[in-house]
Amino acid sequence: MNASAAIPSVLNLRPEAEQAPTSGIVDVFSYGRSKPGIIPLWVGEGDLPTPSFICEAAAQSLAKGETFYTYQRGIPELRQAIARYHEGVYRRAFDPERFFVTSGGMPAMQLAFRMLAGNGDEVLIPTPAWPNFAGAITIAGARPVPVPMAIDEGGWHLDFEGLEKAITPRTRVLVVNSPSNPTGWVASREDLRAALALARRHGLWIVADEIYHRFIHDPALTVDGRSPSFRDVMEADDRIIFVQTFSKNWAMTGWRLGWLEAPPALGQIIENLVQYQTSGTPVFVQRAGVAAIEQGESFLADQIARARQGREIVGRLSETGLVELPPPSGAFYAFLKIKGARNSKDIAFRLIDEANVGLAPGSAFGEAGEGYLRLCYLRKPDDVDEAVRRIGEALPRLVA
Amino acid sequence: MNASAAIPSVLNLRPEAEQAPTSGIVDVFSYGRSKPGIIPLWVGEGDLPTPSFICEAAAQSLAKGETFYTYQRGIPELRQAIARYHEGVYRRAFDPERFFVTSGGMPAMQLAFRMLAGNGDEVLIPTPAWPNFAGAITIAGARPVPVPMAIDEGGWHLDFEGLEKAITPRTRVLVVNSPSNPTGWVASREDLRAALALARRHGLWIVADEIYHRFIHDPALTVDGRSPSFRDVMEADDRIIFVQTFSKNWAMTGWRLGWLEAPPALGQIIENLVQYQTSGTPVFVQRAGVAAIEQGESFLADQIARARQGREIVGRLSETGLVELPPPSGAFYAFLKIKGARNSKDIAFRLIDEANVGLAPGSAFGEAGEGYLRLCYLRKPDDVDEAVRRIGEALPRLVA
Repeated sequence: MNASAAIPSVLNLRPEAEQAPTSGIVDVFSYGRSKPGIIPLWVGEGDLPTPSFICEAAAQSLAKGETFYTYQRGIPELRQAIARYHEGVYRRAFDPERFFVTSGGMPAMQLAFRMLAGNGDEVLIPTPAWPNFAGAITIAGARPVPVPMAIDEGGWHLDFEGLEKAITPRTRVLVVNSPSNPTGWVASREDLRAALALARRHGLWIVADEIYHRFIHDPALTVDGRSPSFRDVMEADDRIIFVQTFSKNWAMTGWRLGWLEAPPALGQIIENLVQYQTSGTPVFVQRAGVAAIEQGESFLADQIARARQGREIVGRLSETGLVELPPPSGAFYAFLKIKGARNSKDIAFRLIDEANVGLAPGSAFGEAGEGYLRLCYLRKPDDVDEAVRRIGEALPRLVA
Repeated sequence: MNASAAIPSVLNLRPEAEQAPTSGIVDVFSYGRSKPGIIPLWVGEGDLPTPSFICEAAAQSLAKGETFYTYQRGIPELRQAIARYHEGVYRRAFDPERFFVTSGGMPAMQLAFRMLAGNGDEVLIPTPAWPNFAGAITIAGARPVPVPMAIDEGGWHLDFEGLEKAITPRTRVLVVNSPSNPTGWVASREDLRAALALARRHGLWIVADEIYHRFIHDPALTVDGRSPSFRDVMEADDRIIFVQTFSKNWAMTGWRLGWLEAPPALGQIIENLVQYQTSGTPVFVQRAGVAAIEQGESFLADQIARARQGREIVGRLSETGLVELPPPSGAFYAFLKIKGARNSKDIAFRLIDEANVGLAPGSAFGEAGEGYLRLCYLRKPDDVDEAVRRIGEALPRLVA
């Protein structure tokens, strides 16, 4: 949906702003958010609030009076903690100077696209994809170019031929999101190597979204308890920017805390852009981030276990015969193909009305997602179970 | 300073990013921030941490588990509180639908410029001006056009002829900041009427920064305890966007909480842009904002009194004979003209080294500010007094 329909042209706004799409997820969410008894599986967050040890770190910082302006790159303690986190997960050394604190994963991505793509540029996005990639690219004045992924019995695959064909002289960036929101696809090391080779060949930057890296369910794709990463295949001077967030690992969606990992040579530019974007992230929020990293591994382990339980339960929807669902290899979403579905948005609205379950319409993730619904299964098993029951009951009516 | 000097061109970044200037305030701040005993008067914040009743509102919200994604326009309670705040200050009715919560004044401004100015557009800024206007305009791909204000014995004045001459077919926005950071200039109602007439005549938007509206020291310019506002002279359909912040009134600089006031017709576009900018502001931060508005008037009164005391003390610098300082009518800055000064940045660095006082160099506010220094006097009187003593002692050496 283009918001400009309702805006009098006399207001004379910029096209980048008028063309910023309303998220198809937000549409559905706004429609059903206050419905009593709804089981909300539409957005990418679980049902648990942030653990109290994290909240207390913020409250203590506030009580100490840490309420002033701060470092635009992030407080040193958090940048060091983020580096240590990477050292633990990737089992090698990381320089804290590579990490820049942002007010969420979304601002990290906005900063990345502001550096890499603008007026007249094109950015390749394998789809279905999180709609905010296209949104951030659009408001930067660049053009998102969707390249549908292929799907077969084995699940989703990057279409390297399609990507190659979509490249023009104006292409500047390739987005790679693995584990994928919404499909649960996880890139193998070979996929990543091929994507990197493509980017090198054409002088493209890669924006890598590996934020679900700890939510990996397919043992064949698991490396040291995490998903394969560009870090496994890249050289130090490859042009890759990673965007990251505290939201998913530590149930901190509402905190707006994330980071950007980029070559330290970009430091001054990133600092300047942060100055004009948010002017930094609250210190007390950053202290919460330090606590999350330092004390949050056991909570994260519970989150991962919860996601796996949810994934098992959702798998039962296949038994209805109305749904195709290759088991998602990572993240915490099921991307359900509804047999015979034409309009996933209609189905999403009707599921709210008739089953009191909130799913995200596949069309929100690009044309390649039409006919699908995304279900977030990071939730207490009873809820997921009940949601699956309600959906199973309603589906035959909805696709008739 | 242009950050691109240090960036290898092989990285092939966007010019909007490379051209984003490093703030001349941040340069000095970074140089001296950790010097023992320094009296820091360089940035626009006072010395008091946020009052505890505001911090406690955030801590309570956290303890209640308000840690999830939320409304992109802001929680209804805060939008209503902001409307009530305006009703109190401007003594008329305000529709909460005009107000959009942002993660600070800076994001509010970034959203405004994203809507109004982009590639090829020009934005007029009366200077000396807060450097972040030009920064936000540059990263939006537009061109900031400084128009020096005039100065005489009576202080600073808008140069309407200069503004008129600077207008081209590409001019889209006029920025008006009153009370002004850094000069302390306050627009009279006649000034605002004339600025509005100019904007109407040329089809320009106005971005109005009236964030220091309660810090008004000249009785001749005071209306009901606040500065004159575009609200006093505008019609409902005038194209004006107001940017605002909680930072100054309630000592909340580090919280990153502000708002945008705009015609409700822009609501969906603003919501979309917020989605791709920060994806909303933490609920617990917004609860703190509600507390600030509902219980913060007596703290604000103390802040204003503190600013007036500081202003009196700083006035003594005129006695050195080395400084010209028309008494600032509003805000909490003294903008000192140093007699014979060539390079205000040099002087700012030397004041750190030789007087252990941190001021912002006038050149950070545009060429029109060269030869000046900005001093933030919202600080406990003893500190301001000692800073004035140290500056008075060092100045004769520095301008020799």
